[in-house]
Amino acid sequence: MRAARGEIAAPLDIALVGVPLDLGATYRSGARQGPAGVREASRLIRQINPTTGVAPYRLCNIADVGDAPTHPLSVEKSVELVEAFYRRIHAVGAAPISIGGDHTVPLPVLRAIAAERPVGLIQIDSHSDTFDEFMGTRYNHATFVRRAVEEGLLDPKRIIQIGLRGTRYGDDDIVYGDKAGIRMITMDEFETLGRAKVIEEIGKVVGDLPVYISIDIDGLDPKDAPGTGVPEPGGIMMRDAQMILRALTGREVIGGDICEVVPSLDPSGITCINAANLMFELTCLAAVVRGRKKSQA
Amino acid sequence: MRAARGEIAAPLDIALVGVPLDLGATYRSGARQGPAGVREASRLIRQINPTTGVAPYRLCNIADVGDAPTHPLSVEKSVELVEAFYRRIHAVGAAPISIGGDHTVPLPVLRAIAAERPVGLIQIDSHSDTFDEFMGTRYNHATFVRRAVEEGLLDPKRIIQIGLRGTRYGDDDIVYGDKAGIRMITMDEFETLGRAKVIEEIGKVVGDLPVYISIDIDGLDPKDAPGTGVPEPGGIMMRDAQMILRALTGREVIGGDICEVVPSLDPSGITCINAANLMFELTCLAAVVRGRKKSQA
Amino acid sequence: MRAARGEIAAPLDIALVGVPLDLGATYRSGARQGPAGVREASRLIRQINPTTGVAPYRLCNIADVGDAPTHPLSVEKSVELVEAFYRRIHAVGAAPISIGGDHTVPLPVLRAIAAERPVGLIQIDSHSDTFDEFMGTRYNHATFVRRAVEEGLLDPKRIIQIGLRGTRYGDDDIVYGDKAGIRMITMDEFETLGRAKVIEEIGKVVGDLPVYISIDIDGLDPKDAPGTGVPEPGGIMMRDAQMILRALTGREVIGGDICEVVPSLDPSGITCINAANLMFELTCLAAVVRGRKKSQA
Amino acid sequence: MRAARGEIAAPLDIALVGVPLDLGATYRSGARQGPAGVREASRLIRQINPTTGVAPYRLCNIADVGDAPTHPLSVEKSVELVEAFYRRIHAVGAAPISIGGDHTVPLPVLRAIAAERPVGLIQIDSHSDTFDEFMGTRYNHATFVRRAVEEGLLDPKRIIQIGLRGTRYGDDDIVYGDKAGIRMITMDEFETLGRAKVIEEIGKVVGDLPVYISIDIDGLDPKDAPGTGVPEPGGIMMRDAQMILRALTGREVIGGDICEVVPSLDPSGITCINAANLMFELTCLAAVVRGRKKSQA
Amino acid sequence: MRAARGEIAAPLDIALVGVPLDLGATYRSGARQGPAGVREASRLIRQINPTTGVAPYRLCNIADVGDAPTHPLSVEKSVELVEAFYRRIHAVGAAPISIGGDHTVPLPVLRAIAAERPVGLIQIDSHSDTFDEFMGTRYNHATFVRRAVEEGLLDPKRIIQIGLRGTRYGDDDIVYGDKAGIRMITMDEFETLGRAKVIEEIGKVVGDLPVYISIDIDGLDPKDAPGTGVPEPGGIMMRDAQMILRALTGREVIGGDICEVVPSLDPSGITCINAANLMFELTCLAAVVRGRKKSQA
Amino acid sequence: MRAARGEIAAPLDIALVGVPLDLGATYRSGARQGPAGVREASRLIRQINPTTGVAPYRLCNIADVGDAPTHPLSVEKSVELVEAFYRRIHAVGAAPISIGGDHTVPLPVLRAIAAERPVGLIQIDSHSDTFDEFMGTRYNHATFVRRAVEEGLLDPKRIIQIGLRGTRYGDDDIVYGDKAGIRMITMDEFETLGRAKVIEEIGKVVGDLPVYISIDIDGLDPKDAPGTGVPEPGGIMMRDAQMILRALTGREVIGGDICEVVPSLDPSGITCINAANLMFELTCLAAVVRGRKKSQA
Repeated sequence: MRAARGEIAAPLDIALVGVPLDLGATYRSGARQGPAGVREASRLIRQINPTTGVAPYRLCNIADVGDAPTHPLSVEKSVELVEAFYRRIHAVGAAPISIGGDHTVPLPVLRAIAAERPVGLIQIDSHSDTFDEFMGTRYNHATFVRRAVEEGLLDPKRIIQIGLRGTRYGDDDIVYGDKAGIRMITMDEFETLGRAKVIEEIGKVVGDLPVYISIDIDGLDPKDAPGTGVPEPGGIMMRDAQMILRALTGREVIGGDICEVVPSLDPSGITCINAANLMFELTCLAAVVRGRKKSQA
Repeated sequence: MRAARGEIAAPLDIALVGVPLDLGATYRSGARQGPAGVREASRLIRQINPTTGVAPYRLCNIADVGDAPTHPLSVEKSVELVEAFYRRIHAVGAAPISIGGDHTVPLPVLRAIAAERPVGLIQIDSHSDTFDEFMGTRYNHATFVRRAVEEGLLDPKRIIQIGLRGTRYGDDDIVYGDKAGIRMITMDEFETLGRAKVIEEIGKVVGDLPVYISIDIDGLDPKDAPGTGVPEPGGIMMRDAQMILRALTGREVIGGDICEVVPSLDPSGITCINAANLMFELTCLAAVVRGRKKSQA
Repeated sequence: MRAARGEIAAPLDIALVGVPLDLGATYRSGARQGPAGVREASRLIRQINPTTGVAPYRLCNIADVGDAPTHPLSVEKSVELVEAFYRRIHAVGAAPISIGGDHTVPLPVLRAIAAERPVGLIQIDSHSDTFDEFMGTRYNHATFVRRAVEEGLLDPKRIIQIGLRGTRYGDDDIVYGDKAGIRMITMDEFETLGRAKVIEEIGKVVGDLPVYISIDIDGLDPKDAPGTGVPEPGGIMMRDAQMILRALTGREVIGGDICEVVPSLDPSGITCINAANLMFELTCLAAVVRGRKKSQA
Repeated sequence: MRAARGEIAAPLDIALVGVPLDLGATYRSGARQGPAGVREASRLIRQINPTTGVAPYRLCNIADVGDAPTHPLSVEKSVELVEAFYRRIHAVGAAPISIGGDHTVPLPVLRAIAAERPVGLIQIDSHSDTFDEFMGTRYNHATFVRRAVEEGLLDPKRIIQIGLRGTRYGDDDIVYGDKAGIRMITMDEFETLGRAKVIEEIGKVVGDLPVYISIDIDGLDPKDAPGTGVPEPGGIMMRDAQMILRALTGREVIGGDICEVVPSLDPSGITCINAANLMFELTCLAAVVRGRKKSQA
Repeated sequence: MRAARGEIAAPLDIALVGVPLDLGATYRSGARQGPAGVREASRLIRQINPTTGVAPYRLCNIADVGDAPTHPLSVEKSVELVEAFYRRIHAVGAAPISIGGDHTVPLPVLRAIAAERPVGLIQIDSHSDTFDEFMGTRYNHATFVRRAVEEGLLDPKRIIQIGLRGTRYGDDDIVYGDKAGIRMITMDEFETLGRAKVIEEIGKVVGDLPVYISIDIDGLDPKDAPGTGVPEPGGIMMRDAQMILRALTGREVIGGDICEVVPSLDPSGITCINAANLMFELTCLAAVVRGRKKSQA
Repeated sequence: MRAARGEIAAPLDIALVGVPLDLGATYRSGARQGPAGVREASRLIRQINPTTGVAPYRLCNIADVGDAPTHPLSVEKSVELVEAFYRRIHAVGAAPISIGGDHTVPLPVLRAIAAERPVGLIQIDSHSDTFDEFMGTRYNHATFVRRAVEEGLLDPKRIIQIGLRGTRYGDDDIVYGDKAGIRMITMDEFETLGRAKVIEEIGKVVGDLPVYISIDIDGLDPKDAPGTGVPEPGGIMMRDAQMILRALTGREVIGGDICEVVPSLDPSGITCINAANLMFELTCLAAVVRGRKKSQA
């Protein structure tokens, strides 16, 4: 993405990070190759957002700080290692934009950057990830939202989930979300409301306070993202995702991630290309926030 | 699809069947691998329909009864073997949901389950399959609808075909459909009417009498189903297919099939994933009918 | 495409041509295999357009005249060779429908067929190709429109570009287009206007005078065309392209091309299948014009 | 293969032919795409054999006469159509070098070119194709040798089969071969004898009389030919095949074929590349015979 | 593999088992799809070994008992579940032939079937798997041999490892093997000795006592097995593996496994095809032992 | 390859370099993605050579200095840019080990590092690259050896070429090689001599003076390297290449390259894996030379 490789050291406004972790995945694994695949695909990205006109590299200091350390055989140790790495990023004042890794990744990230106060969450995903336990463990790719709410990292009233669908095991996750006050937009509601209304709804839920954006690539339709562990037919299109993200320009975005990209499951490579472009959109959003602060300073 | 492997024996409400036959295909073959590919992909399916809330395995007895026998070198013998297999399924009172095989498959299925009276047909397909002869033979993947009407298995006034498109050889098929009273919705009419109107139209055509659903996977757009023998650009999206099928919940669905899935032509695997999900939707539709009858009994 | 292989000799109305050239490509190469890939995929095409009913082979003489000669190591020499080949086609009075090759191809084509007077241009593309220099050279796949305007081959007021998007290096190309009076429809404007309005707009810009149609396959969304050098997420769908082209039936189409198809980057083959179908649509458009003239003669 | 496309008309010495037939295949189909795949791959072939120095296009007239007609739904009709096509080739005095199609293809070829007297056969194959019936039919890809012997087209004492292996159903085929006097070299014997001895053995069996060469691509090891219907691990290497064929230079080769190439099962393309090179070797062998006769005339 | 699906119940001589576990893999994951991929590929296998003539299904009772249960997020729990499953197999007196899963799998298998006394081991592998700890854990795909020796399940003097190669981290594993008396044959020694001598050496090491055979598919050359987590160039060929295994006919084989097959990394499918054939060879070896016992009883 | 990313600055002993250039390729392009593909694959490489025991990172300073600059549209400018980059490497006293790029790459490399005196060349390749002109240009992937000899960079008596094969256009290249005194070993001679004799021959030709090693990946058999522009069946195996290179340990290796790797043509990835391992072998060879000098200093 035209970002220089760099160290975690001030002055750094935005840190691009890879998290090669897939031990939290329960079906098809391989997301640990996500960072490598998306880095390669990101070579197609140029400097200016074609719609918003945002030129992030002109607005602030951006560096690819490399991959967070992980343990190849232990999800628990990996979560600790990742959290420590993001604490360093947070300590120098940089906003992290990450490429996973499975959807266990946001938990250690939020522990590092949202410890001061709960933040909002915009989640594009086909699954709500609000199970209490999944397959008998509490830390995996289907529980991060619930854990983060419990730990006070996320404000459930400021969480909005878009694209939920996919056959289900039971109702535990949905019931939890309802009780907690999470705004869940299923694909059916998405179609009923229409994209424009969904964008409005997002604005209402997250408001002007700090918000984190987490994109499980399986939130997209499988034709936009065949390279993922649990593809769920009938999702949002890449075009929808672009419009939703661009409409957030100016919001208080403190970081974001793209997870569950499994390059080996997509020989055409469009999953990585789409993921790289979504990372660029997230980077633009964070750059506007950072640029505004710098110009105010 | 979380269905236990089972025998054809009462009490069985729904039989999931594979039909590894592709001798009726005229262009790119390989659909005989369809059942294996879709079975593997179906491991992603869980128990509850996310939209309709239907949980088919709770409503009735469902088993994967394996593959119907076919003859690897003779389409005629295969058609006989398949019909005999489905007669056994029909005899124990089960509704078949099948994965083909090429689009010759529905003919022997209908001979087994619609012999008592003509039924309606909802067909998602890019071709109308109403040729009289095709390449000099009368039994192949481009003639099943016409044969079934002639044999009194289908009521032409209760046939609706959705997604017709694709360059043509001549007008024989379309003229036949018009005369017979088949409701043909081309892609252009689909776009003009809009999905909601098409759904209404389906309801009007099939009414409350028994109906069979046949999905040629090439009815979907090639980006949703690249793994098929005769891909035709510009078709309906997976999302459309899901909405159309779910809107049929409660209709008198007596069986259904997905045909023309050629796994070897789709290295990304989304054709099989989409086909498995469509099978689940068909299973939900049949389960509601069966469940209603059981609760009435 | 069911066209006989033929010589460049009268009476010939439409010449189908391959241009195996990719030396003008700046990122991922391989478009020189485009003609071979699309020819193979074109075997799926039959004789009648399903929507417009146009049967081009009945309206006029159409032949596949083979590949234009190119030089495998020099873009300059290739451009000269290609121009000479198209001059021969133009000399016998045939309209060329081409499959590239990278997007350098339209320049020599226009030099051969638009030398008499400037023509209009309908361009489906994610990039405007109006750079003055790109990477220090003036003849490559990002400059053809500007060169053709400068050389008096295109009338900038009758150029319309559809689908522009993709991150940018700078503003040189867009500023040029604005000044020259080119009508540029970005993807965002496409979404705001809606497809029907875009079609109207095209009609207004090109009017009834001669027009050339150039389709960079990356104008399509990457899920419709993963096999291309510079895929840009969030483009127009194949369905949109079909509707746009069919709406042009009757316009004064003098030729057209599909460029930037890279078969090796698309293991599923849908890029070639879509490209072959678009070639058929272009052929239908040209055939209507030719047929009309012949019947008037 | 640098051969001009041509008609079946004298003076023609060697006819390159495609036979897009796979209705005789019992496991994975798709060989009907073999001719298209190998033609495309043959573009890599230049004019001179690097080892033998044979330059076939200088020695005699060679043309690609296109594909033999086949019936897409009937193996019996296809066999008749193919035989008729090869009779035309034989009538103008040309030797056919063919790319199939499944291994039913040699039977109609031999009927056309060996009707005058039985000929010898060098067969590279993992299966002996000497079943009497296979799956209840007598004309398919596992019976051609037996049928041809019965019809007096092949002299069983001058048949040698190389590379036999693969798990078996029973002993019918092997027992037949033994009784008929066919020289069968299993892979185990190949390894015990060594390649040089096998080459000697071939010479002894076929002698100086006319011989036909039939290569089932599954005779090669699957790593050399993954794109085939019934891959059998542990076969001969491409290098072995090249050495065996080149050692036949000067023998009375009257034609040959490569069968069972299924391009869709080999995304890397090496099956087609190897098949194209083997066709070139066969062409060189036939060219030497023809060239000798012409120089003698 | 033509084996009926069956229960774990006497009389059962050989149990074919899948172990969908890959949590012990440290580089590219995906081996949990190995059983599904190899089952599908095994449909090509017929009933008689072409070389040894062994027809296992005639000699004894063989059933595919399905997949061992695993825990998708915990390697420790998975190891326990797998061991328990194999204890059931062992209890009914059946020999297990398994398809993994990563190379952690043999440890729980040996715990179940070798608890009575240490057994010998023939290991085809590019890595010796004799690390004490690997990445800080003791139970993973690089330590199983050492653990099994420590637990008294394997007799180190009767272990022979074939195909060792691959760049190394250090000498810990090799030094351990030397001290323990394991016979390690690197690829270089394999080439120096030649295949025939290696086969002799295997006989000497394992003798006539019970022996288990474990094949890490990465022991094969990557061109025979590209679908694996850690491919190491320059390994043994499939043909070598077949000859080595067939030479063991008559030895006291008590079970065996094939591990580290990752179908998603091999779009051509030859890894699964080779693995299925190796499973058949292992089955033949075990069947001879079982058949002999039955005929003696 | 476990090498840190580094700058071109002393003390640096070995520089790993990518050269993303493919404008000199005449058939299938895409080698410009070679460096990215091989870097990714090199993550599998560990620190110690399993056969020679060489641990290059302990012997000397090694860094990945990134990609040489190239011009995406001009082979001439690219050659100049590459030469300048390698002059910088040579100036700090480092030996370059490169991953191309097409086989034009060695010319600018040799201009930078062999300007002082002609050096020897070990070339593994299926083509001799000794054309005078190819397709009318003098600087491309088929002429580098001749140009380098003419410029006094290579001593033709100390050039040895291994693996030559592939059909030919004419004899210009071979005749040149013979006259110049180049030792050309065709595949046929390779087979006749046997690998051990070839290794001896290499030693005789290159002696103890400085030698450069250039590997065109198409020198390998296509099953070891399907991902290349001009695959030629029947080449040397990866195992042969490893044995040949390891036998050179101690020779005065001053640099080396691997060229013509086209990742997009190899969906299985083994071309990149093999190329990465060959780079490691080259690095070991150069490291021994460097380590010896350092210990002598």
